[in-house]
Amino acid sequence: MSQKVVTLGEVMLRLSTPGFERFVQADSFDVTYGGGEANVAVALCNYGLQGTFVTKVPSNALGQAAINHLRRYGVDTQHIARGGKRLGIYFLETGASMRASQVIYDRADAAVAEAEAGEFDFDRILDGASWFHTTGITPALSDKAAELTEAALKAARAKGVTTSIDLNFRKKLWTKEKAREVMTRLCEYVDVCIGNEEDAEMSLGFKSKDTDVTKGQLNLDGYKDVFRQMKERFGFKYIASTLRESHSASDNGWSALAFDGNDFHHTRQYEVRIVDRVGSGDSFASGFIYGLVTGMKMQDAAEFGVAASALKHTIPGDLNHATLTEVSALMKGDASGRVQR
Amino acid sequence: MSQKVVTLGEVMLRLSTPGFERFVQADSFDVTYGGGEANVAVALCNYGLQGTFVTKVPSNALGQAAINHLRRYGVDTQHIARGGKRLGIYFLETGASMRASQVIYDRADAAVAEAEAGEFDFDRILDGASWFHTTGITPALSDKAAELTEAALKAARAKGVTTSIDLNFRKKLWTKEKAREVMTRLCEYVDVCIGNEEDAEMSLGFKSKDTDVTKGQLNLDGYKDVFRQMKERFGFKYIASTLRESHSASDNGWSALAFDGNDFHHTRQYEVRIVDRVGSGDSFASGFIYGLVTGMKMQDAAEFGVAASALKHTIPGDLNHATLTEVSALMKGDASGRVQR
Amino acid sequence: MSQKVVTLGEVMLRLSTPGFERFVQADSFDVTYGGGEANVAVALCNYGLQGTFVTKVPSNALGQAAINHLRRYGVDTQHIARGGKRLGIYFLETGASMRASQVIYDRADAAVAEAEAGEFDFDRILDGASWFHTTGITPALSDKAAELTEAALKAARAKGVTTSIDLNFRKKLWTKEKAREVMTRLCEYVDVCIGNEEDAEMSLGFKSKDTDVTKGQLNLDGYKDVFRQMKERFGFKYIASTLRESHSASDNGWSALAFDGNDFHHTRQYEVRIVDRVGSGDSFASGFIYGLVTGMKMQDAAEFGVAASALKHTIPGDLNHATLTEVSALMKGDASGRVQR
Amino acid sequence: MSQKVVTLGEVMLRLSTPGFERFVQADSFDVTYGGGEANVAVALCNYGLQGTFVTKVPSNALGQAAINHLRRYGVDTQHIARGGKRLGIYFLETGASMRASQVIYDRADAAVAEAEAGEFDFDRILDGASWFHTTGITPALSDKAAELTEAALKAARAKGVTTSIDLNFRKKLWTKEKAREVMTRLCEYVDVCIGNEEDAEMSLGFKSKDTDVTKGQLNLDGYKDVFRQMKERFGFKYIASTLRESHSASDNGWSALAFDGNDFHHTRQYEVRIVDRVGSGDSFASGFIYGLVTGMKMQDAAEFGVAASALKHTIPGDLNHATLTEVSALMKGDASGRVQR
Amino acid sequence: MSQKVVTLGEVMLRLSTPGFERFVQADSFDVTYGGGEANVAVALCNYGLQGTFVTKVPSNALGQAAINHLRRYGVDTQHIARGGKRLGIYFLETGASMRASQVIYDRADAAVAEAEAGEFDFDRILDGASWFHTTGITPALSDKAAELTEAALKAARAKGVTTSIDLNFRKKLWTKEKAREVMTRLCEYVDVCIGNEEDAEMSLGFKSKDTDVTKGQLNLDGYKDVFRQMKERFGFKYIASTLRESHSASDNGWSALAFDGNDFHHTRQYEVRIVDRVGSGDSFASGFIYGLVTGMKMQDAAEFGVAASALKHTIPGDLNHATLTEVSALMKGDASGRVQR
Amino acid sequence: MSQKVVTLGEVMLRLSTPGFERFVQADSFDVTYGGGEANVAVALCNYGLQGTFVTKVPSNALGQAAINHLRRYGVDTQHIARGGKRLGIYFLETGASMRASQVIYDRADAAVAEAEAGEFDFDRILDGASWFHTTGITPALSDKAAELTEAALKAARAKGVTTSIDLNFRKKLWTKEKAREVMTRLCEYVDVCIGNEEDAEMSLGFKSKDTDVTKGQLNLDGYKDVFRQMKERFGFKYIASTLRESHSASDNGWSALAFDGNDFHHTRQYEVRIVDRVGSGDSFASGFIYGLVTGMKMQDAAEFGVAASALKHTIPGDLNHATLTEVSALMKGDASGRVQR
Repeated sequence: MSQKVVTLGEVMLRLSTPGFERFVQADSFDVTYGGGEANVAVALCNYGLQGTFVTKVPSNALGQAAINHLRRYGVDTQHIARGGKRLGIYFLETGASMRASQVIYDRADAAVAEAEAGEFDFDRILDGASWFHTTGITPALSDKAAELTEAALKAARAKGVTTSIDLNFRKKLWTKEKAREVMTRLCEYVDVCIGNEEDAEMSLGFKSKDTDVTKGQLNLDGYKDVFRQMKERFGFKYIASTLRESHSASDNGWSALAFDGNDFHHTRQYEVRIVDRVGSGDSFASGFIYGLVTGMKMQDAAEFGVAASALKHTIPGDLNHATLTEVSALMKGDASGRVQR
Repeated sequence: MSQKVVTLGEVMLRLSTPGFERFVQADSFDVTYGGGEANVAVALCNYGLQGTFVTKVPSNALGQAAINHLRRYGVDTQHIARGGKRLGIYFLETGASMRASQVIYDRADAAVAEAEAGEFDFDRILDGASWFHTTGITPALSDKAAELTEAALKAARAKGVTTSIDLNFRKKLWTKEKAREVMTRLCEYVDVCIGNEEDAEMSLGFKSKDTDVTKGQLNLDGYKDVFRQMKERFGFKYIASTLRESHSASDNGWSALAFDGNDFHHTRQYEVRIVDRVGSGDSFASGFIYGLVTGMKMQDAAEFGVAASALKHTIPGDLNHATLTEVSALMKGDASGRVQR
Repeated sequence: MSQKVVTLGEVMLRLSTPGFERFVQADSFDVTYGGGEANVAVALCNYGLQGTFVTKVPSNALGQAAINHLRRYGVDTQHIARGGKRLGIYFLETGASMRASQVIYDRADAAVAEAEAGEFDFDRILDGASWFHTTGITPALSDKAAELTEAALKAARAKGVTTSIDLNFRKKLWTKEKAREVMTRLCEYVDVCIGNEEDAEMSLGFKSKDTDVTKGQLNLDGYKDVFRQMKERFGFKYIASTLRESHSASDNGWSALAFDGNDFHHTRQYEVRIVDRVGSGDSFASGFIYGLVTGMKMQDAAEFGVAASALKHTIPGDLNHATLTEVSALMKGDASGRVQR
Repeated sequence: MSQKVVTLGEVMLRLSTPGFERFVQADSFDVTYGGGEANVAVALCNYGLQGTFVTKVPSNALGQAAINHLRRYGVDTQHIARGGKRLGIYFLETGASMRASQVIYDRADAAVAEAEAGEFDFDRILDGASWFHTTGITPALSDKAAELTEAALKAARAKGVTTSIDLNFRKKLWTKEKAREVMTRLCEYVDVCIGNEEDAEMSLGFKSKDTDVTKGQLNLDGYKDVFRQMKERFGFKYIASTLRESHSASDNGWSALAFDGNDFHHTRQYEVRIVDRVGSGDSFASGFIYGLVTGMKMQDAAEFGVAASALKHTIPGDLNHATLTEVSALMKGDASGRVQR
Repeated sequence: MSQKVVTLGEVMLRLSTPGFERFVQADSFDVTYGGGEANVAVALCNYGLQGTFVTKVPSNALGQAAINHLRRYGVDTQHIARGGKRLGIYFLETGASMRASQVIYDRADAAVAEAEAGEFDFDRILDGASWFHTTGITPALSDKAAELTEAALKAARAKGVTTSIDLNFRKKLWTKEKAREVMTRLCEYVDVCIGNEEDAEMSLGFKSKDTDVTKGQLNLDGYKDVFRQMKERFGFKYIASTLRESHSASDNGWSALAFDGNDFHHTRQYEVRIVDRVGSGDSFASGFIYGLVTGMKMQDAAEFGVAASALKHTIPGDLNHATLTEVSALMKGDASGRVQR
Repeated sequence: MSQKVVTLGEVMLRLSTPGFERFVQADSFDVTYGGGEANVAVALCNYGLQGTFVTKVPSNALGQAAINHLRRYGVDTQHIARGGKRLGIYFLETGASMRASQVIYDRADAAVAEAEAGEFDFDRILDGASWFHTTGITPALSDKAAELTEAALKAARAKGVTTSIDLNFRKKLWTKEKAREVMTRLCEYVDVCIGNEEDAEMSLGFKSKDTDVTKGQLNLDGYKDVFRQMKERFGFKYIASTLRESHSASDNGWSALAFDGNDFHHTRQYEVRIVDRVGSGDSFASGFIYGLVTGMKMQDAAEFGVAASALKHTIPGDLNHATLTEVSALMKGDASGRVQR
């Protein structure tokens, strides 16, 4: 029986312009559905685990379509609540070269932001689960959503389920002050923390030295310093972050750094030609979780996560459709891209 | 110099499934922008008038794209305000045969619903205008929007600009009690009223005898009775309604009835093979307004309106792209559909 | 807990030309997945039942995509076997007016045709099920597939699960002699039999008088005669058939006749404007099964089935995406196709 | 060895809006290539004859693409000349219901309009041919094109090849005065003449009584009268015309009338649901020629032609992709449009 | 009140193959409208100026669609004349790697080429304008178009409006002898001249040393030499050129050189991953003009122009949809292409 | 008269996902037709030779469409046999960056695999031919196909037609033991052998030193060693191989090595940005054959072949649509990719 991982968060309607069209040019939008924690559930199903996704969607055809999209890729959607006002939407315009991708969020009043903790029976949902995962986006949606997140984390902790959070600070959803207040409270229940320097600073107040995310260069020492502070403060079992060197919207360097409390593990760095980079952080998180939950060593789990997310960059949509076989092969070194006949 | 007609209302992002796909099947949405009063402004521009559309859209690329869509078809958009939370959206799934088209509205918190009357200088906007038009949808959006509508109507009345309203009761936006309260107030400033029996009952409380809109058959006597009541109560100069015989989602009978206070004018009835019926009411309103503002007789204005809207049924999107020449030709009787080489 | 219905058969890759393009014109194919019994499972899930589909698909991305397509619409796919040579394919070109739709089957050596009965634990699969359904297409695929079908029917009978078969004679898969030999054997285990006159004659040897299926006119008396013969020979509990009046590839009359051993029930007849008629028989079968399994009277079950399949004609693809609400509304008489806002 | 038919004319780039979009809405055009005589050559290849098409196209990729499109469907393109200024273009917007299809021609200075008769070795081109066909469009392109047409007709007559012309008057290409002057000269070399009343009047000056083509009703007596006049004046061996009842842009009645000098043959009338009616006249001409060249009786040849063109109405593009089998089946009466599995 | 810039030239229908398809493969064309001076007008509107575009288009739906495309992006089109034979067309096939993009022009007899200077009231058109811009393509269209261009330049000079020209030599439109004759005359009225070495040589006869444009390497000294000659001969106030290093059809180096009569300003060089490089010269011109008309220093104006045109390379179509904010941000150094959420 | 080259093999239906979609995401497939030897025939037609392709396709619309696709590009298809069970299919998912392209073959029981040598009159087919080409894929399809290949090679040898084979080992079609047995026998009739190290080892048993194809680096000495062994064993007149440095699925180094029995010729190496690399080997073979058959020197023939195939990498589909002019220009050194206006 494969292991069960539960994730909690929002699934949104994603509307993206075709090709490299800008919003003002578009006469059609490509339609998919995704969101940080939903993306993680899908990827884990791809690797053979049982991914259970918890959210609330409206009782209309769009809510149904969102559920369908996750079911299509094997996610257990039986615990998703129905009702509320609307499905959150995000609009995406894919950049190229020096033109950045643009995201317009239209997620206010989404059903999940108004959901009550009491709508979910977390004791039953977490029954038999090995892992619970969420992100810093969910508590940022609303006070109710923060309560819902806390309820879920508490329930997981109570049942001895390992918990992880991807900090994912979103400045359009809340201020750093509000974020720090809520995230500091939530992190009490977290075993594994994922997040880059900016997240760590905005969400938790840990400051590293001289990293300018717009510069596209790594600052490994800064990261290590921050990770040590985070370990000390919250006692996280593991801490990890992806490391992006943003050469342009088309080409990125991509690696990860993981910390087990003693040692730092910096993975191989990939130079990726980008097809769609949305969801790449989630694909790292899911790969890293997969590695840890299946008993890989820290270095291997991080390598698995970064290989998974390198592949994600080449796949349109939020979801990582790379298979276990493909991630394993890349992790072992074959990046030649030769045709598989 | 062509005559100027000002319309006030909402422009929404319209997302429709391609072909006859259902929402749960769709992997892309066709993108256009429209809304009752915007549709009227576009059609009037097509006929050579100067259509000015007043609304508020958010300060992002989607708001810009909505403006661009109207500019493309000649609408004067200079008075559109920018700001607010979001652009209203509606999702459309086109039906066929006995399967009805489905609309999912996602328009809460749209920028125009939060707009203050003070954001618009109606005295300047209406300067030189011959006609002002709005619909019952706009005041239904919010209390603020109702105030905005009233302010505009008052300003038009004050400047001697002819005013029209299309009742367009929308049960998802407000109750009939609320509608009646607001619409009764607004109708004090209205010269020309457009609306079918259901609208008249729900919005204004006029009840006709035994019309069941799901039956797809006309009740001319009921209409006449209601029109007379409306005339008596509000003193409208003209009252008109389209008359739809809904054989199926693919085929409709389509005509109109107009009342000048003395005589009733029932137009020719068209049997239309439907491509896209959204916006057909607006296309009648714009055609009818065009007729009246350019001095046609009542019967001709109604015939122009119904010919215009018959053509609209054959055009994808909310907007009526039929030209003055085409409407005139159809109005004169050529419905053979022979290739124009 | 909703009732469980198990279906057994083939799921194919369906490749159809866009719009009304012919095969020799097509530069792209629309991709969906379907097949008689899979279509039934999907429709039952739409109505709120638990549909379990049993088949075998190859261990490659196409097999996975077929499973995904069924999961998307809620089907329980956990019992689907993996392996074998290939996924069956069918190519579809949609006709119009007097040009008939064309189907090219490319299903030889499909995984399910080579599946062994021993690959499926029917005792477990049928556990808790109320109904088992298959069609005459499955046993026609190969001798092994006929054995598999028989094993499933026997297991259902042994567990007291109601069984149904849709005769669906396919002349490209087997001869009528072979069909009669196999189907006569299988019908010993069948409670509910669905099939038109042609099926009854080709698959079971029952001959009715003077029906010419190319003429597009009904022969109710012939049907009744055949149904009585079938009842007498096999003791079927219920027998039903759809009745198609094929005016053209674009317009069909559509009704059904059901027989409960005593009385005949002829449903309302719909005049359907066709979007995609593939899968219409399956949509009747699933509606009829839904009616029976939820305790409707025979007439109502047949009306539900024919309303469901009337709606199917308006939906692209094999699958019936009509909802319970929609079928019920149509069954109650609202065929006006008015926009649902 | 199949019989050889040579046709002479223009092949154009056809740019049509997708679905029912109007020109002002379109963001893409569907691309095919066609033209009266090219369409005839393709259809004849479909029926198993050897179709040779003669024209001139520019020495660029568009000219090549036009040739490729005809080669794709089996046309012998070896005699096509290269050079000149440009490829003629026509833009098509497909109508529906009471909205007529619109064609914008952009064919001035097309390569074939500037071609010299000396660029073609008609003696070699017509070697072994049974039939030569052209239309009234070709001589209308330019004086040079009229000379080219005359040279071809003369060469055919000299070699004893049967000749046919489809009058096809195009008011945007020339005046009726000019047309009559040229066509009267060309008709001296014609054995079989195809054309409706309007063509006969505009191109040759034959006037029938009270036919109004915009009315969509037939005037068989008028046709017969005109045919007799044409027979008398030019001694045509056969004369034929399609008869269109234009109910709307979506539905047409369609039949044909043929005259063998003694008897009139009015075919079965089809009620066609239109997908694309451009090229329907050419599809009649090619079917009629096929019938005559393979020795059918007049009535059968006309029935073949009208069945072929009824099918054409259901196929997108200029070309008739109906096969010999399909036309024969329809001609024999099966118009039920049942799925061919 | 934003400043007004008037441009004069041709707007063409642009038909491009989707993706990287070649002309001979294409079954659809993407449709946009553009042309050197129209592109400049659109970009200036994007930056907040009032762009007025002057041309002539045919009185049909294609001419209307061209106007609509420009209106959509804010261009003042009220002075565009209607009439003439046709809309110019250009066909585009987008290259990749070592395969160059291909353009087929089909612009002979375009409406603007036949326009008379008398059809435009330049005194009124230029009223309130700060700048007038055209290119060397417009006078190359025809003798009439050269006269029109001269009339416009003279009118601008007479009204004290700053004038600019982008030399843009097109060898398929005229010979270098003809170009030199006309352009030398026109340059008498020009304040700001834009053009690369090849343009300078072909259009004006200024020769630089050893630049081979096929080599993809810069020759700054050659440029400076030519600019000095140009300054001396015509007394241009400013001279500028983009500098392209054509590594392949997919990757280009891109910078600009500007000369204020005293100093040379070489901008930052961008390495662009190309989505669509058509219109990149126009996007430099419009950015450079924007800088100058809003009072930037020469270096800043050139940096603005080259940043604007770097972004243009990443946007499909002729038009530069980069916003003022985006160009400014890139100009200040953020080329990391990080997602903007 | 251009030279005639005959090729023998399979033409398949190619179904590829749009953009970079994975199989599990795709809702449509792009449709083309191709196969090793068919691709060679098309490219040779592009260069002006007469390419004759020999195969067998089923007697249905898909078989016809395959033939049509080759006719479109000028291939002589008159000798293609009709009948058999089905058309072979291959599914393609295009990779990017470190994600490799995936091919799923579904070619068992293809018509050509079951074709008898007696169905082809090779004496007539090869009449007037200069060259005969096939690949190692054809004999791998079935024993019958191996016999067919041998019959064709023998017939070519008997008529003095130069023969070539591209080894193309396909591990999913046969074992290396079976391949060696058959290919050793076939190579007795071969003049020119094309194949890389892996092919040489798997198909013929020639082993080179330490090349790891997944590493993406060249081993020229290994190649030379193998070529010498091949020359010695089979007496091939010429031997050639492409040399791919697979940096990723998006970027490859690409050159070729040719051996005339005395000297080795290593071509220029191209760095290609890949659009579609399927068929690149065939495009080298066809270019190399073109060079040899038109009398180029060995170095030039290899340079022509590698330039041709470099261009192929930039073109979607199996077929190389590069023209003679384009290949010649690239071969002479212009790889700047500047727009051709």
